[in-house]
Amino acid sequence: MTPPIVITVRAPDGPGLVADIAGAVASIGGNIIDVGQHSDQATTGFGCRLEVDPTVDPADLGIRFAEVAQRRHLTFEIHDPEVRPRVVIACSKTLHCVSELLSRVSLGELDCEVVGIVSDRTDAAEVSDRYGITLTHLPVGADRRDQEAAFAQSLDGFAPDLVVLARYMRILPANIAETWAGRMINIHHSFLPAFPGAGPYAQAHDRGVKLIGATAHYVTSGLDEGPIIAQDVARVSHRDTIADLVRRGADIERSVLSTGVRLHLEHRVMVFENRTCIFD
Amino acid sequence: MTPPIVITVRAPDGPGLVADIAGAVASIGGNIIDVGQHSDQATTGFGCRLEVDPTVDPADLGIRFAEVAQRRHLTFEIHDPEVRPRVVIACSKTLHCVSELLSRVSLGELDCEVVGIVSDRTDAAEVSDRYGITLTHLPVGADRRDQEAAFAQSLDGFAPDLVVLARYMRILPANIAETWAGRMINIHHSFLPAFPGAGPYAQAHDRGVKLIGATAHYVTSGLDEGPIIAQDVARVSHRDTIADLVRRGADIERSVLSTGVRLHLEHRVMVFENRTCIFD
Amino acid sequence: MTPPIVITVRAPDGPGLVADIAGAVASIGGNIIDVGQHSDQATTGFGCRLEVDPTVDPADLGIRFAEVAQRRHLTFEIHDPEVRPRVVIACSKTLHCVSELLSRVSLGELDCEVVGIVSDRTDAAEVSDRYGITLTHLPVGADRRDQEAAFAQSLDGFAPDLVVLARYMRILPANIAETWAGRMINIHHSFLPAFPGAGPYAQAHDRGVKLIGATAHYVTSGLDEGPIIAQDVARVSHRDTIADLVRRGADIERSVLSTGVRLHLEHRVMVFENRTCIFD
Amino acid sequence: MTPPIVITVRAPDGPGLVADIAGAVASIGGNIIDVGQHSDQATTGFGCRLEVDPTVDPADLGIRFAEVAQRRHLTFEIHDPEVRPRVVIACSKTLHCVSELLSRVSLGELDCEVVGIVSDRTDAAEVSDRYGITLTHLPVGADRRDQEAAFAQSLDGFAPDLVVLARYMRILPANIAETWAGRMINIHHSFLPAFPGAGPYAQAHDRGVKLIGATAHYVTSGLDEGPIIAQDVARVSHRDTIADLVRRGADIERSVLSTGVRLHLEHRVMVFENRTCIFD
Repeated sequence: MTPPIVITVRAPDGPGLVADIAGAVASIGGNIIDVGQHSDQATTGFGCRLEVDPTVDPADLGIRFAEVAQRRHLTFEIHDPEVRPRVVIACSKTLHCVSELLSRVSLGELDCEVVGIVSDRTDAAEVSDRYGITLTHLPVGADRRDQEAAFAQSLDGFAPDLVVLARYMRILPANIAETWAGRMINIHHSFLPAFPGAGPYAQAHDRGVKLIGATAHYVTSGLDEGPIIAQDVARVSHRDTIADLVRRGADIERSVLSTGVRLHLEHRVMVFENRTCIFD
Repeated sequence: MTPPIVITVRAPDGPGLVADIAGAVASIGGNIIDVGQHSDQATTGFGCRLEVDPTVDPADLGIRFAEVAQRRHLTFEIHDPEVRPRVVIACSKTLHCVSELLSRVSLGELDCEVVGIVSDRTDAAEVSDRYGITLTHLPVGADRRDQEAAFAQSLDGFAPDLVVLARYMRILPANIAETWAGRMINIHHSFLPAFPGAGPYAQAHDRGVKLIGATAHYVTSGLDEGPIIAQDVARVSHRDTIADLVRRGADIERSVLSTGVRLHLEHRVMVFENRTCIFD
Repeated sequence: MTPPIVITVRAPDGPGLVADIAGAVASIGGNIIDVGQHSDQATTGFGCRLEVDPTVDPADLGIRFAEVAQRRHLTFEIHDPEVRPRVVIACSKTLHCVSELLSRVSLGELDCEVVGIVSDRTDAAEVSDRYGITLTHLPVGADRRDQEAAFAQSLDGFAPDLVVLARYMRILPANIAETWAGRMINIHHSFLPAFPGAGPYAQAHDRGVKLIGATAHYVTSGLDEGPIIAQDVARVSHRDTIADLVRRGADIERSVLSTGVRLHLEHRVMVFENRTCIFD
Repeated sequence: MTPPIVITVRAPDGPGLVADIAGAVASIGGNIIDVGQHSDQATTGFGCRLEVDPTVDPADLGIRFAEVAQRRHLTFEIHDPEVRPRVVIACSKTLHCVSELLSRVSLGELDCEVVGIVSDRTDAAEVSDRYGITLTHLPVGADRRDQEAAFAQSLDGFAPDLVVLARYMRILPANIAETWAGRMINIHHSFLPAFPGAGPYAQAHDRGVKLIGATAHYVTSGLDEGPIIAQDVARVSHRDTIADLVRRGADIERSVLSTGVRLHLEHRVMVFENRTCIFD
């Protein structure tokens, strides 16, 4: 089954937008399989995601959308299902997230190519080897800014479509966050905005919460403050030690990060200021 | 905040449908707040739900949709937010579902008028009194068919838009199910299709399941076989006796039935053969 | 089915405690139906909850436990299933929580007697009437401390075993929190520690979270900082307005508060510093 | 942190059992960290799981328990945390479950040694290689009984403590199920007892359920009828095709099977007739 052509559209809201967009597809005999639409009240922005049967030519769609774009002040992207996105994974000591992503890519569950793994440590050497992907080791030396510069340069070198921070335990300088805005996903091991920063499971244990969680979000310059893509929780009890929370949380992190990455790769995420719209 | 005008549309699928529908709204200056669309692969049917700003006149919308309807062989309904649906609740001995529905209607959470409560027993007398609604008692005598006829006649008399079987523990004859097809919702106290029929919690206990559930579905002539509107589950353990399952299950039944009724009242449910499409 | 005798025990941890406690029950021919035990690592405290077949006399149990208590420096409570706890409910404008509690008490799901409803407003008049319980109206005048004093005095007058703040929207002065420590449960309409204080649903909407929640906790002098008894969450999306979050959250609040109150009434909650142990 | 000694005990129920068992641990100065107990009403059997600080010698515990065993007609097992269980995984074409298990063993999340992978197909060759584990390929030829015999013999050869059927898509003959009773876990890709047998996701799609699930259970001679260890569900909608259900279900299968295997490896599962008691 050939995957569909995905079109994403953004515009200032106004009457008749959906009619115009659907008309552009219909004008070349395209069949809309699925449509998602969102009128964002806070920003008065409009977003739309269409799946179109791949019986039409993406280039032809582009011509028609360019016409509508001019008339309606909209921006659009047409995603050719033949092109596989390039992904870089960054990690540190904890490996279940990177292991999960690689396993899913190898099983065909995430449609992308992992072009590199980058780490401030060497713990991921075995898992990288297992999947035949080069691990770029960027250790922290006397001045952490050197490592940050090397990290930025390494990402630039890979020219990926997406960077995934899969438990990469370093705070990024603002310029890296800004460079990769909307193209860098982090997994935070708590239900944000609860327990941002370091040691969220210890914080959760101290507070005696009955549910722990994980959050996949786009990285911004504010620590753990970027737009949230996916979240989930698991039930815990007084019997659970911090080590238990870490273990149970790991399962949530795996699935939440995988979901966040999949939604992004399928062009299902659209950001309006600091909130995401998910077309699912 | 005035609720929106809701339009539901059904048609054979085909290119350009969304464009035509959206065009009809746009043609009178209507603003689409929300749109849900579904192309059903099994039936090749198309369904659509629109929320339109109540700045336009429902009658004007009707004229434009009638034009599109002829051209595209579609059927449509335009729901005026000013008209409150009439609801009859049927129940028997177990009262948490009817109590929940009445509580939610009184709090304004379910936008409808409960015009009557019908029961084969008198247990609901106190809860009916509490909310000032007449309980119609239709006891079962020598011949259960007499009661069934009285039940059918009672429903006809109320002329409701929706009948809710809130733990009404009698199997309905096929003719009643057929009369109220798509307008009668039942709560079954299991995760269908597991444990249909009588005593689902005892069945669940015997089988040693780790989750129990409840299902809100439209009634058809097949017992517990109608289109499913809403389902949910709760975690149980070996420590739970059948009485515990009944207690925990009651919470799921409450919320699943309330959800099913709300979705129906908001015109968010569309049936394609034996499956529902939920526009939420 | 007669409910069991519930015994709760607290002690400094040490070897042989369970043996001694179980021995005390066995010594008078009592049969332990269920036992829960917790060794709290943070406080090195030990807690235990036993359900004993009501074939033995609670007074006899008391004598044996008093002996063990002296030897092992433990404290214990023996709860006679015949005694119904007295409960006061406080509420303000939002009524789904108080309505839910009253409905559950009337259905026999919560085993207690609601001896009074107290409010700073009159909104609850109808729901109080419906269940035949007196509403004590304590309006806020020129000096809010007068109302706080009246509230404290009113609670004292009812001499309840438990006070439930069912969306009572006033911050309590420290002395009231301290008086009712461990006997006053509040529902907060967020997944604490996320979004404490006022307007949690608006806060959640702003942050763009994908799950909202509710928390039942014992009241302490710190706002929304007391020991958590129960929490749950519901999935939300970008489509949900603040009003939608309020509606969806109401369902979580209902069930979380009901659960918290039930756990307390069944003597299943034990507090170790700021964390609860739940014997379920 | 050294893992605890785990003791599991089964006995006919009777007063004073917990006292005797706790006494046996106390008699050699052992400290009980955690205790779980279950009195099974259906079978009148009693089960108990203790975690004891590894400061005492498992052999000494054995001596004391042997004494109690004789007096109280109980059976017990003392699990030395130093001994790693041997596990064989069987799979067929679908590989996410075997991939997940191997990933978790390599990360230290499942404390066991995978001594072999057995399959009726060669699809698992790559994932087996990746983890350096030999794939035993047992193809089905003219007579399926030959393959079944080879499968039985292969398992015998590995002498594992546990066999995991990780989407092994062949129905086992009764004799294999009986040989490995209580030591063979299967993942079924539905919420049993709904949708047993072949094609559960297609069945679920046809029925229009709103939740799909997965079940980890011990294998018995009845197809998909053995004692359930773990279950979970995920929400689906009318938008989901069968392929979507397969994808979403895969996430549930992964985590449910991993949970079931972990609970077994930690000696947290006890079977009473066809129901499991989970000490967690």
